[in-house]
Amino acid sequence: MNTEILGLIAGGLTSIASMPQLIKVIKTKNVEDLSWLMLMILVSGLSLWVWYGIEQQELPIILSNSFAVVVNLSLLICYFVFRNSEK
Amino acid sequence: MNTEILGLIAGGLTSIASMPQLIKVIKTKNVEDLSWLMLMILVSGLSLWVWYGIEQQELPIILSNSFAVVVNLSLLICYFVFRNSEK
Repeated sequence: MNTEILGLIAGGLTSIASMPQLIKVIKTKNVEDLSWLMLMILVSGLSLWVWYGIEQQELPIILSNSFAVVVNLSLLICYFVFRNSEK
Repeated sequence: MNTEILGLIAGGLTSIASMPQLIKVIKTKNVEDLSWLMLMILVSGLSLWVWYGIEQQELPIILSNSFAVVVNLSLLICYFVFRNSEK
């Protein structure tokens, strides 16, 4: 199998699996299960993966990790927005 | 920067960020926030990333995704063990 297609399928699956948490947080506005510290560590790690993908010129890595950065930055924004609205 | 070291740091950060959920589930034995379907999709995607890493001969991808497979398979096992013990 073409490894780029393999990587795109892999990235598609891991991207799909990351969506329910964001959808749930947006729907319920409940952020008490989120840890801003872990989200920051995760976004840092994912950003480094994007950088790694750019250095290696690998499209599946760039695409899937960029998507994950957007999802987890959104969670981080939700955390700070909804945390304050709860009090 | 050496891209392999960059990838290993990226993988280390995303691996650290995946641990708290597993630790929390093991401590609280509460699995109602887990979705077995999403865990299955995630483990499938992560396994394909390991395969991709092997095809591309990239150690950081193989290591970090293998670790993530172990973490999420553990979550899946916890889900089925603790779900039954709750009833």
